Amino acid sequence: MIVVMKEGAATTEVAAVVEHLRNLGYQPQVAADALKTYISLGGPGPSFPAAELHELKRMPGVEEVAIPSPHYKLVARSHQLPDTIIHIGEKTIGGGRFTVIAGPCSVESREQLLGTAWVIKEAGADLLRGGAFKPRSSPYSFQGLGEEGLRLLAEARRETGLPVVTEVLSPEYAPLVAEYADVLQIGSRNMHNFALLRAVGEIRKPVLLKRGMAATLEEFLLAAEYLFSEGCREVILCERGIRTFERTTRNTLDLGVIPLVKQLSHLPIIVDPCHATGRRELVLPLSRAALAAGADGIMVEVHPQPEKALSDGPQSLRFDDFRRLMVEVRRLREALQDLPAT
Amino acid sequence: MIVVMKEGAATTEVAAVVEHLRNLGYQPQVAADALKTYISLGGPGPSFPAAELHELKRMPGVEEVAIPSPHYKLVARSHQLPDTIIHIGEKTIGGGRFTVIAGPCSVESREQLLGTAWVIKEAGADLLRGGAFKPRSSPYSFQGLGEEGLRLLAEARRETGLPVVTEVLSPEYAPLVAEYADVLQIGSRNMHNFALLRAVGEIRKPVLLKRGMAATLEEFLLAAEYLFSEGCREVILCERGIRTFERTTRNTLDLGVIPLVKQLSHLPIIVDPCHATGRRELVLPLSRAALAAGADGIMVEVHPQPEKALSDGPQSLRFDDFRRLMVEVRRLREALQDLPAT
Amino acid sequence: MIVVMKEGAATTEVAAVVEHLRNLGYQPQVAADALKTYISLGGPGPSFPAAELHELKRMPGVEEVAIPSPHYKLVARSHQLPDTIIHIGEKTIGGGRFTVIAGPCSVESREQLLGTAWVIKEAGADLLRGGAFKPRSSPYSFQGLGEEGLRLLAEARRETGLPVVTEVLSPEYAPLVAEYADVLQIGSRNMHNFALLRAVGEIRKPVLLKRGMAATLEEFLLAAEYLFSEGCREVILCERGIRTFERTTRNTLDLGVIPLVKQLSHLPIIVDPCHATGRRELVLPLSRAALAAGADGIMVEVHPQPEKALSDGPQSLRFDDFRRLMVEVRRLREALQDLPAT
Amino acid sequence: MIVVMKEGAATTEVAAVVEHLRNLGYQPQVAADALKTYISLGGPGPSFPAAELHELKRMPGVEEVAIPSPHYKLVARSHQLPDTIIHIGEKTIGGGRFTVIAGPCSVESREQLLGTAWVIKEAGADLLRGGAFKPRSSPYSFQGLGEEGLRLLAEARRETGLPVVTEVLSPEYAPLVAEYADVLQIGSRNMHNFALLRAVGEIRKPVLLKRGMAATLEEFLLAAEYLFSEGCREVILCERGIRTFERTTRNTLDLGVIPLVKQLSHLPIIVDPCHATGRRELVLPLSRAALAAGADGIMVEVHPQPEKALSDGPQSLRFDDFRRLMVEVRRLREALQDLPAT
Repeated sequence: MIVVMKEGAATTEVAAVVEHLRNLGYQPQVAADALKTYISLGGPGPSFPAAELHELKRMPGVEEVAIPSPHYKLVARSHQLPDTIIHIGEKTIGGGRFTVIAGPCSVESREQLLGTAWVIKEAGADLLRGGAFKPRSSPYSFQGLGEEGLRLLAEARRETGLPVVTEVLSPEYAPLVAEYADVLQIGSRNMHNFALLRAVGEIRKPVLLKRGMAATLEEFLLAAEYLFSEGCREVILCERGIRTFERTTRNTLDLGVIPLVKQLSHLPIIVDPCHATGRRELVLPLSRAALAAGADGIMVEVHPQPEKALSDGPQSLRFDDFRRLMVEVRRLREALQDLPAT
Repeated sequence: MIVVMKEGAATTEVAAVVEHLRNLGYQPQVAADALKTYISLGGPGPSFPAAELHELKRMPGVEEVAIPSPHYKLVARSHQLPDTIIHIGEKTIGGGRFTVIAGPCSVESREQLLGTAWVIKEAGADLLRGGAFKPRSSPYSFQGLGEEGLRLLAEARRETGLPVVTEVLSPEYAPLVAEYADVLQIGSRNMHNFALLRAVGEIRKPVLLKRGMAATLEEFLLAAEYLFSEGCREVILCERGIRTFERTTRNTLDLGVIPLVKQLSHLPIIVDPCHATGRRELVLPLSRAALAAGADGIMVEVHPQPEKALSDGPQSLRFDDFRRLMVEVRRLREALQDLPAT
Repeated sequence: MIVVMKEGAATTEVAAVVEHLRNLGYQPQVAADALKTYISLGGPGPSFPAAELHELKRMPGVEEVAIPSPHYKLVARSHQLPDTIIHIGEKTIGGGRFTVIAGPCSVESREQLLGTAWVIKEAGADLLRGGAFKPRSSPYSFQGLGEEGLRLLAEARRETGLPVVTEVLSPEYAPLVAEYADVLQIGSRNMHNFALLRAVGEIRKPVLLKRGMAATLEEFLLAAEYLFSEGCREVILCERGIRTFERTTRNTLDLGVIPLVKQLSHLPIIVDPCHATGRRELVLPLSRAALAAGADGIMVEVHPQPEKALSDGPQSLRFDDFRRLMVEVRRLREALQDLPAT
Repeated sequence: MIVVMKEGAATTEVAAVVEHLRNLGYQPQVAADALKTYISLGGPGPSFPAAELHELKRMPGVEEVAIPSPHYKLVARSHQLPDTIIHIGEKTIGGGRFTVIAGPCSVESREQLLGTAWVIKEAGADLLRGGAFKPRSSPYSFQGLGEEGLRLLAEARRETGLPVVTEVLSPEYAPLVAEYADVLQIGSRNMHNFALLRAVGEIRKPVLLKRGMAATLEEFLLAAEYLFSEGCREVILCERGIRTFERTTRNTLDLGVIPLVKQLSHLPIIVDPCHATGRRELVLPLSRAALAAGADGIMVEVHPQPEKALSDGPQSLRFDDFRRLMVEVRRLREALQDLPAT
């Protein structure tokens, strides 16, 4: 059980809750992320009396008393109070940073990848993404360059210094991908692929886990629990839109999960506005929205010539789009950080 | 057909597109809202040649060439280039403002309504909302105070000066509600109620039209077209979440429609984060997200004692929550306005 | 609380449950529809002890102990044990019959309507459907012939003897439509239009209530409860598909609600396979499926020349299609009735 | 391109279409399944002239001219006109049979499995199902007995003679499962797991492929195409419900895909009413509906004591339920076969 304090709650309010819990016999602990303060009961202690719950909820500054699902444990905020912060080379995900991951949907050629990598690096991106093994609905679509793609990603990292995120499609290739990648991505189509989750979890490298296209929030956190159950401790969640009746956009971005994940789990969560919408012109406004909702970062597709991309062209940013995005995001980030507590 | 320029497009890029269209024989016109610049072909003129479309799309600064559905006409941006700006007393919706509508879900008593009205007024809200006629799934739930509720709303307006938004449930009551209300609301359950749309459209007062819980964007704009077809010209769209498989939240907020509506229509669009999520603690982060996505405002529920509310308690803000929300929104608004064009 | 016996439960099993309930102090009553037997506790009596529930559920032949929602009352099977049987002229809906309602989507002309009416009559249809007032997403689409359409429907009834089903779009027109129609239809877009439900419920004619495109089963039964709360006692439910991500069909037919409605309510339920799928070639197999799932009938669209229909052409049956459908349905019905109890 | 004739089309109508296509220069071929007749153009020949399409569609007895997606090839009916019929030992799936696959969700013990196998065998089931490797949302739920479960399945086959269907969760275990199983199952959560599809496809044993919980029909057929692209030719599709907003049932069964698959593909398709609904009492009516819609079979869960099952208890049939189901299905099957052509 976790007491979630409101954004902007006064320190005196936090202290009053801590004192109240102490009087009930607990050893409360306090942690905070960029937005909120969390208080755990502390220690094994007695289970919290139902009769006291109502009063606790009504204390000034208390927003919610979150009781995580009994089905996930290690990823729950009640298991680990402070935010998980993931270090990848000199880069950091979680803990108040806003991390930008960018790059082409698929690695297509040396020129395409390195050209893109330099542009996003100069614009301020933190990590490089690119698919070497591509999950495609049709067996006849371009399936990625495979290991050659991984080698190009490694070369791009050497040249630009950007750590690399790339997708793993099957347990047997997990070790190979792990040789080249800094972050192993598990795609939406594989979020329920438990054998893959186990295989990738065993490797104990950072994992970027995308939400399944029809996965509930509970199932999403349980997929992360699979990774944890194999020893992995560095999981970045990624909301990328869910499948609904609305077809103007490819999927429907569900930003409500951002603050919910913050409440229920200690894991960082980023947003992929490209797959969520399938439309380039929505990427900038929804990136701003993700940041404003409290996301720890975004992952976007960038391509030198989207109209010639072998996959996902209509949702890929051009170089200029991406530069503009970085300027907007940086300034909005500063503005949000400057918000004084009331 | 409308050329949508990217956010932050340079004036020289706009000028180049205008010049290009002139050379093709059009008399282009230019308009801009808070985020973007739009260019119409101007005049009836010849239909745009398909062969030229590709080149137009690739001009620097061009984001998208939007072709509205042939099914809606009067609400399309191609019909009216500049943003519709709606004046309600001294208040304004659209055109770069961020309007906050707040108040209880249901009008329950004089004390509850006036107490809430004064609090939101002092915190800086622009309009007062409150239901006098309530659409309820069960015939045995509280159905609202009816005309007595309307009288209380009028009293609250007299006292606080806040214009009043309230819902109309049937054509026969439309004139009665229009006597008291400044803005007539059509709820989600009635977005497809074409007889009601016609009756309310005839009155020619401002209308707040909420998206149906399973309505596509096209159907949403067509419902607004019904209002226009009866002579109404002041329609505020309201995204309030759509029904999906995810049940952690009551609905799934679809922020992608905000920039899409801006592209396809000249109408303002606001967001209702309370109905979208059904959870109080998500209202602040999603209000920020709505603003960052380009929405023209928000509508939120505020109640002196949400745990005693006759409807929608779990999603209603307490007074302090609302004050905090207003501070955040105001500062974020300022930060976004300060974003310099690159 | 209702004990639902399995299809094909032995009479000795029914008797044992009755005896068991009597020993617990109740006066159980028994009713049956075409498929199953239902046992109510009988009389007000004490509330059923939770400790006995498990044993009751495990008695031979017991399928389920159904506890209806506390939100609906009059439509619940626990309120009225026997199936509601609705008589319309010489026709019957519910209670083991399989009723076929057919006719054009819209009444377009005297020739179209009467030609169709004679064909469906000869093929064995029970009721004639046809829209005089049409709910259309666009204000510029054909909206129906209005009262002229109602007059043509009345003429078709005089000529063929077929009772007439037609839609009501607004409370003010309900009395007018009721002058002409035998059954008042409330369409999917109006299932949540509570003002209309009240106005139509007051008239106390039979009502055909279609499920909203995103309505849960609970909301569907509550809409029927609105009709009952105004005194209407003859409601025919109609499943017509729900809106999902799948677009190969217009909607997704949800046949699971057929046996669920039978368990929870005493009302008859029919299926509309035309609107459910939007594809003519799916109407026959899904009509058979509806019958096999236990539906009390179907409603289908028939048009002399679907390719020239003013609405819903691609889902309308041609005359020959309909004749074939009637042959299939009749024979399958006979086969199902011949199924001997084991 | 395939001409689909209506159910019950006259042989003279078929002959007329064949003649018409011959006159246009094609060598048409004819095939039929239990419900319908299909005519292909025959030979490579010229592509069909658009101008002739309208006339072809209007010929008596023609239901639809189906043009399969260009994305799938080998599974399309235009690639192989006659129905695929799959032989598993002495059992057959497709081509007019109605195959019943039954057994426990999970193999839990020797007693549970063999007891169940004998009961379903005696009641007339065709194949035995049982999970040895279980995909579970939580890593802490029962994950199956693994290879021990496979050995028990093989023992049950030796004893009862029933061929065995069991699920494969990862490419590396595919060969092991294939040693024991007659049919390899790919579950809903893995329908988009392309690495698994490839690995299982290579084995060239019959595969039972379940539809993903949010997969479109096109994606479903493309997943089968993955299996075919590796050389597998014996794929049984399985509709098991899709995820929607409705929660009274676990999923929403989509029976419309049954006739659509028949039109677009030559593959057999069966229905899993247990996972589709999650409620035992819906299994019988939806099994009947599946049969009436044209499905090639059903797969159901049977357990000696569902209330003690380690997984999926509420949707598992008891032995008596299953016996009743078999009686009903057999008699309905006979009735449908007796339906004379008009």
